[in-house]
Amino acid sequence: MAVVLFKSQTDDPTLWNTELSRYLVHLDFRVWPAVGDPQEVEYLLIWGELGDLLETLPNVKAILSLGAGVDHLGDLNKIRNNISVIRLVDDDLTRGMSEYVIFNVLRFHRLDQLYREQQSQRIWQEHPPVASSEIRVGIMGLGILGKDAAKKLSSLDYNVLGWSREPKSFDFCSVFHGKEGFNDFLEQTNILICLLPLTAETDGILCAKTFSKLPVNSYLVNAARGQHLINADLLDALSSGQLLGAAIDVFPEEPLSTSHPFWGNTKIMMTPHVASKTNYKTAAKCIARNINNWERGGNLEGVVNSSRGY
Amino acid sequence: MAVVLFKSQTDDPTLWNTELSRYLVHLDFRVWPAVGDPQEVEYLLIWGELGDLLETLPNVKAILSLGAGVDHLGDLNKIRNNISVIRLVDDDLTRGMSEYVIFNVLRFHRLDQLYREQQSQRIWQEHPPVASSEIRVGIMGLGILGKDAAKKLSSLDYNVLGWSREPKSFDFCSVFHGKEGFNDFLEQTNILICLLPLTAETDGILCAKTFSKLPVNSYLVNAARGQHLINADLLDALSSGQLLGAAIDVFPEEPLSTSHPFWGNTKIMMTPHVASKTNYKTAAKCIARNINNWERGGNLEGVVNSSRGY
Repeated sequence: MAVVLFKSQTDDPTLWNTELSRYLVHLDFRVWPAVGDPQEVEYLLIWGELGDLLETLPNVKAILSLGAGVDHLGDLNKIRNNISVIRLVDDDLTRGMSEYVIFNVLRFHRLDQLYREQQSQRIWQEHPPVASSEIRVGIMGLGILGKDAAKKLSSLDYNVLGWSREPKSFDFCSVFHGKEGFNDFLEQTNILICLLPLTAETDGILCAKTFSKLPVNSYLVNAARGQHLINADLLDALSSGQLLGAAIDVFPEEPLSTSHPFWGNTKIMMTPHVASKTNYKTAAKCIARNINNWERGGNLEGVVNSSRGY
Repeated sequence: MAVVLFKSQTDDPTLWNTELSRYLVHLDFRVWPAVGDPQEVEYLLIWGELGDLLETLPNVKAILSLGAGVDHLGDLNKIRNNISVIRLVDDDLTRGMSEYVIFNVLRFHRLDQLYREQQSQRIWQEHPPVASSEIRVGIMGLGILGKDAAKKLSSLDYNVLGWSREPKSFDFCSVFHGKEGFNDFLEQTNILICLLPLTAETDGILCAKTFSKLPVNSYLVNAARGQHLINADLLDALSSGQLLGAAIDVFPEEPLSTSHPFWGNTKIMMTPHVASKTNYKTAAKCIARNINNWERGGNLEGVVNSSRGY
């Protein structure tokens, strides 16, 4: 018997219950605030702030995020040590993110903004093609999402660089790491992709100082969290020409207010946090597999290091 | 000694001479109309109509196209049987074309037209994501270009179908062939990609009848030749909703006149024949390798079947 408490403002519990039931044979699915006996709750399936929820649930073994990030939960250091925090690892989520990244790399590489503008003005003008091997795509964050995007971009012959907290080594991209590797990484990047987890260290990392290290006429893609980006610094970098364009999928407050200056900026390609959406069908299967595996004594996939924040 | 006659209105002979000289040690490079002794000309390097040029050149062994297509030469059946017609086969050309195709598939799959329109109206609205495996991309033409695009789209998990003149078999796409397979192919296609050679049989193939076999709300990408497409039929299909969008890179007359109705149609993503451009550096290397190989008794790569037209 797995007792699961579900809490989300944005996900449909009925759909999740149905899907999880297909894979968890002994499922006791409860939807917050109908907790039932709080002593019985073993798994917390959640999107959004934990608040003081855990204080009322003494026997929770794992907190399972309904998305790839766990920053939405709040301060992870307040979580009891005997509770595992699990991010969602789902090939579908990874694939969707890589699609978004590849799409925007191609958009910038293939000068789509310029050709759209030319069409609107009925201008027939070719621009010299640049080989993908001459475009340096720099990916911040080489976890599951960053690695998949890097590998796929590399197979399209892009020159891929990666930046991560710890040293890593892959055959499909050159890797820079830590604070000491950040400037070298930025100086060699034409299209900067942010796929970092949101932590105290990465909050506001997409700022004027970072943009100033990129070659002029670079591009930015932010598909991580709105809090990574200093909005005013992006607008400045776009108006100075330091950046030629940006694709922004995430915002500190969503939905974005209609008065936000990004809406009217034609150099910013906005999407309403759709780069990669949790698909309850594939995600429920992954979460159920994780729970089943653990109950049989196996390891959990996607365990977060709470002090690191991801 | 290889005696090469160069003729093109759009390519720079000086650049080609320099590059070819790097790989052909005994090169006698002549630029039309400065033919010199016409008896000596062995290779014709050309973009554009042959006209009656061959009548004055009795010893030409091969006609080497400066692009992937050979339709620009005119009627291939008028060419003497002892002259090989060679299309340009260059990995760079192939890579550029696949980029264009993948970019536009992602554009349509990821609803970019809709999200651009929403941004201009400051509308925050998510649309349910569709997995790439549920998008059926149908590629017309499975030569070097079509195969490369199919393979790469398949590696991004798209459901790829192909249509070719002759039966073929690949592990990265299901193949339909001939007139008898055309309707089945179209009925299962969401995004139709034309990479066909232009021949009497394929002229005007992108017409109302073809569009009517596609599921409603399909998309078209034409990166082959303008003559494949019946313009009025595309406009009708877009206004009826049979097609939701089209990416068109090629036109029967280029540059396109400013009065052409495509310019102002926001459902058509136009580019000025830049899907894949011949890069003289990589192309000269490929052409020189082909000539060198032949002179040493090897086979030519890219030989066109003149009666088939490609």
